[in-house]
Amino acid sequence: MFARPQLDPDSAIPLYKQLHSQLRDWIAGGRLPYGERLPSTRELAGLLGLNRTTVSAAYSLLESDGLIRGHVGRGSFVIGGPLAGRQGASGAEALLDYDRQPGQSRVTGGPLAGRQGASGAEALLDYDRQPGQSRVTGGPQGPAKGLDWDVLLQDLERVPMGPSQMQAPSEGTISFATARPREELFPLDEIRATCREALAGADAAGILQLGSPRGYPRLRDYLLAEARREHIARPQDDLLITSGCQQALDLVQRVLVRAGDAVVLEDPVYPGVKHLFARAGARLIGVPVGPQGIDLEPLERVLLRERPRLLVVTPNFQNPTGASIPLAARRSIVEMARESGTVVVENDIYGELRYQGEPAPSLKRLDEAGDTILLRSFSKISFPGLRVGWITAPRPMIARLAEAKQLTDLHTDQLSQAFLLRFAESGRLAIHRARVLAAGAECLAAVLTACAEFFPAGTRFTRPQGGMNLWVRLPEPLDAAELLPRAERERVTYVPGKFFEVTHHAPGGLRLCFAGLAPERIRAGVAVLGEVFRSELERQRALRRYEPAPAMV
Amino acid sequence: MFARPQLDPDSAIPLYKQLHSQLRDWIAGGRLPYGERLPSTRELAGLLGLNRTTVSAAYSLLESDGLIRGHVGRGSFVIGGPLAGRQGASGAEALLDYDRQPGQSRVTGGPLAGRQGASGAEALLDYDRQPGQSRVTGGPQGPAKGLDWDVLLQDLERVPMGPSQMQAPSEGTISFATARPREELFPLDEIRATCREALAGADAAGILQLGSPRGYPRLRDYLLAEARREHIARPQDDLLITSGCQQALDLVQRVLVRAGDAVVLEDPVYPGVKHLFARAGARLIGVPVGPQGIDLEPLERVLLRERPRLLVVTPNFQNPTGASIPLAARRSIVEMARESGTVVVENDIYGELRYQGEPAPSLKRLDEAGDTILLRSFSKISFPGLRVGWITAPRPMIARLAEAKQLTDLHTDQLSQAFLLRFAESGRLAIHRARVLAAGAECLAAVLTACAEFFPAGTRFTRPQGGMNLWVRLPEPLDAAELLPRAERERVTYVPGKFFEVTHHAPGGLRLCFAGLAPERIRAGVAVLGEVFRSELERQRALRRYEPAPAMV
Repeated sequence: MFARPQLDPDSAIPLYKQLHSQLRDWIAGGRLPYGERLPSTRELAGLLGLNRTTVSAAYSLLESDGLIRGHVGRGSFVIGGPLAGRQGASGAEALLDYDRQPGQSRVTGGPLAGRQGASGAEALLDYDRQPGQSRVTGGPQGPAKGLDWDVLLQDLERVPMGPSQMQAPSEGTISFATARPREELFPLDEIRATCREALAGADAAGILQLGSPRGYPRLRDYLLAEARREHIARPQDDLLITSGCQQALDLVQRVLVRAGDAVVLEDPVYPGVKHLFARAGARLIGVPVGPQGIDLEPLERVLLRERPRLLVVTPNFQNPTGASIPLAARRSIVEMARESGTVVVENDIYGELRYQGEPAPSLKRLDEAGDTILLRSFSKISFPGLRVGWITAPRPMIARLAEAKQLTDLHTDQLSQAFLLRFAESGRLAIHRARVLAAGAECLAAVLTACAEFFPAGTRFTRPQGGMNLWVRLPEPLDAAELLPRAERERVTYVPGKFFEVTHHAPGGLRLCFAGLAPERIRAGVAVLGEVFRSELERQRALRRYEPAPAMV
Repeated sequence: MFARPQLDPDSAIPLYKQLHSQLRDWIAGGRLPYGERLPSTRELAGLLGLNRTTVSAAYSLLESDGLIRGHVGRGSFVIGGPLAGRQGASGAEALLDYDRQPGQSRVTGGPLAGRQGASGAEALLDYDRQPGQSRVTGGPQGPAKGLDWDVLLQDLERVPMGPSQMQAPSEGTISFATARPREELFPLDEIRATCREALAGADAAGILQLGSPRGYPRLRDYLLAEARREHIARPQDDLLITSGCQQALDLVQRVLVRAGDAVVLEDPVYPGVKHLFARAGARLIGVPVGPQGIDLEPLERVLLRERPRLLVVTPNFQNPTGASIPLAARRSIVEMARESGTVVVENDIYGELRYQGEPAPSLKRLDEAGDTILLRSFSKISFPGLRVGWITAPRPMIARLAEAKQLTDLHTDQLSQAFLLRFAESGRLAIHRARVLAAGAECLAAVLTACAEFFPAGTRFTRPQGGMNLWVRLPEPLDAAELLPRAERERVTYVPGKFFEVTHHAPGGLRLCFAGLAPERIRAGVAVLGEVFRSELERQRALRRYEPAPAMV
C-alpha cells in the first residue's frame, strides 16, 4: 500500500525535496519496505497534482541515495530500507555496526556511505558489486548461472525489521540505543562456579542430551513452584520455557494470530513486538502509552469496538517509555479484556528491575479467570546472552505453544537452563539482583538529573521507577531521527521514536536506554545530546523567525 | 479438507468398522487435525452411499475412543490427534511419555487410557475435567468467567505435529524411536573442562551479554573459515548460526515460502520438516527415496512440471531411510534444480556420521552457481541438548535469514556457542567424533545383523553407511502402526512409517534409530520386534487362508 505523501506547498522547501525527504523517511522507517514497487512518476504526479518532473527529481535523489532502483519497463523498486537509508537513517544503522571493527572510519554522507561494515540490507547491494562477478538479468545464461537472489527475494514478502537490541557500542561511542544490562556487573567468578556446579552432577549427560519442548524439567518445576508460591500460576496453568521472551511472543503469535486478526499494542512499543505481529498479517492497533502506561479510555473503546484477538501489554517499565500501570488500571484492563473476549499477553520482562516505589500485582494474578498469558525472562535481570524465558498460561494454550515450539527449534538450550537453575538455587541470582538494583537506581538518578539539566526547555521525559528505558519528547519542530546523525558525529547514539511507532507519529520522540551505562557516561552522553538538541532548536527558531512558545510541560 | 474415505464393500470387516478405523488413523496421523469439523452423518452417508446409521456407528466409536466430540447444533469435532488417539496411536505417543515418571503403569486400551502422564492434546481434555472446575459454554456467566480455551483454540489453525526426537525412553524399554546419540559416550570430564575454559577468558562477560542475530562472532568466523577451507563457502556466501537445524529449516521457510508455494520433500521424510512446511501453507510434493536417496526420475518430472520454490534434500544418511545420494546423482540434482529455478536446501546434519564407505562432496560444493543453502549442526555429532546449527548461503539470503532470526529469538544462546567453539578448537570435538564413529559402526553392524537374523522373510531394510536411522518395510499385510502397541507391551518401541509419509502411503514402513543404543540392546530389541512381526504374519496368513508370496526382495 502506497500512502499519499503529505507535502506543504507553502513551505520554503522545494516540493521535490519534500517528496524526496518523505519517501526517504518511509524507506528508512520500513513503511516502504524493501522490494516495494513505487508508483510510476506519472501516477504519483497525478495523485499529488504535481508536475511529473518534480516526481522524477525526487526519484533521482532516492536513486542516488541508493534507496531505490529503476528497472526499464518494470518501474522503480525500493532497494534500501531500515538498514540501508544512510542519511535519514538512524538507530537501525546501529544494528549494522555490530560487526564493524573498532577504528574503522565512518563516512556519514553520500550514497552508500559506510559500506565497509556492510551487513543486512547493504549486503544486498554489495552482492551485485562483488569484484569479479557480473550478474545479468536476461539473455543467454552461462553454464553455472544460478539464481538472481535480488529478484528472488524482492518478489517475496519482506520480514520487517526495526532497530534492535543488538548493538555493540562502537569504541568511544556512548550508546543509549540498547536495552541491556551493564557487563561490569556480571559476577564472573560466580558465573564460573555456577557453570562448574551445574555440570558437576551425575545428570550432566542429561543436560547435553536431547530435551523436552517444554523445557529442562528441573528448571520448569522450579519456575512453576515459584509461580504457584507467588499466586501467579493457578491449578489450571502450566509453564513453557522459551528461548527468551522474543520467542515467547513469536510462539504466541504463531498459535493465536491469523492474518487479519486485530492485535492491540502499546504505542510506542518495542519494535520486535510490532514487526512480529505485522509480519503475521495482524491488523495492529496502537493505543497510546502515558505516564501511567497504556491509556485506558482509548483502550476500552478499541476493545469494545474491535473485540481484538490479543492485547499485548507491559505492566512494568514499558519499553520504550518506562511507564508502569497502577493497580486500579491493572484491574480495569483485566476486566475490559474479559468482557471483550480478548486474550491478554502480559509482557513482564522488566518487572524485577524496580529501583523505587512499590510493586503492583501482575495482571495474571489479578485475573481471577486465569486466562492471562504471562511472559517472563532471565535476560534483563541476569544475562541476555543466555536465551531463557518462560510462559505461564492455561494448560491448553501451553500444550499448543509446546507444539509450535517443537517445530520452531525443538527445545530451548539446556546448558543455559541448567546454568540459570543453579544460579537461582544457589542464591547467587538474589545477590546479583540486589547488585543490579543498586546500580540501576544510580543510573536512573543520573539520567533523570542529566535530562533535567541538559535538555532544552520544552523537552518532556518520563520518570520511570525501574527498568532500562526512558522516553524523551523533544520540543517542536525537532525531529529525533533527523538529529541522530549529528549526535553520532559527537559519538552519542540512541534510537529515535519513529521505530517504536504503531499508529501515532511523534517525530520528537526518542528512547534512552540508561541501564547499560555507568552514571558518569550517562551524564556525559545526555550533555552532548542536550547540546545537539539545543543548538538545532536555536537554529530552527532563527530560521523560522518566530519566537518560541513557552515550555510545553 | 475432508477426503473421501476408501471402504471395501467386499471385505469381511463391517463398513462401520472400516470407516471407524480409517477416520481413527486419519486423526492419529494428523490428516484430520485437532479442531477439524467432521461432515454431518447425513453428508458423509450421502457422499459414500451408505446408510446414515453406519456413519453414526463409526462416529460413536470415535467418540468412545475420545477422538471426536459432538456439539449439539455445531457438529462433531476432532479432539484427539497424533497425541491423543491411544489405540491406533503410536510413536507420537512417545512424546507424551517424556514427562512420565518411571514406574508408572500404563494402560494401553480403552478411551483416554494412560492419562496419568498427560500432556499435549490430552491436557486439553483434562482441562475440562479439572477437579472443582466446571465450564459452561453458554448461559449467564459468573463474575470471573473467562475464555473457553477449548473453543478458542479449536477455532484456530492447529500446528500439525508428528512424533519427534523428544522421547526419553521409559525405564526398561528399548527405544528405537529417537534419533539421538548415546549418552554413555559423552565425555563428561572433557565437557566440564571445556566449559571452564570457555568462560576463563576476559571475554566471558561478552558471552553472557546480548549478542548478534548472526551468531557469536568467534564461532561464526571459525565455521566460515572451515567452510571456506572445505570449498563449501564461496566468496559470495555468508553464514548464520541458528538454534539448531530445526530452526534453520523454520527460518528458511519463513523467508522463502509463501502459502501455495510448491515445496519438494523426500518421501518418507523427518516429520519436523513436513509439518513445518505444511503449516506455512506450502503445497508439499513428496518424491520417493530409494537406496540411492531421492529418486531422480520423478524428481526431474516434478521440477520441470512444477518449478517448485524449494527442494529440501538430505545428501547423507537421510532421516528416516538412512539413504545417501551418490556423486553422479548429486550433480544431477544441482543441475536439475538450477534449470527449474528451484532453491536447493541441503539438510546435512548427519554427514559427519559416516561409519563406512567414501564421502561424496556436498551439493553446496558441487553447485558452481553457489545458490544451495546448506544446513549443518553440532547436534548429531556432539550434544543435541546444546542447540547450535548453522546455515551457509548467499549473502542476500543470509541477510534476510538474520532478520527473521532476530524476530524469532534475537540470537542463539551464546554460552553453548562459546562452549562448542572451545570444544572444537581444543581438539576435543575431533577426539569425540572418532569415538562416536567407532561406536556408531558397532551399532550399525549390530542392527543390520539382527534385522537379517530376526525379521520375517519378505522384510526389506536399508543398509546405511552412517547416520542414526534404518528403514524397514514389513511384508504385506503387516501394518507397523497397528503392531506398535504389541511391541510396546514387549517393551520395545519405534516410530511407524505413517508419520514420515508425505504423499506415498506404505503401512509396512517403520524407522529404527540405532545410534542411541548399545549393540546388545539393539540385538535384544530387534529380536523382540522380529517375534512380534513374525507371529502376526503367521496369524494373518492363517486368518486369510492363503499362502504367502515369496519374499519380495
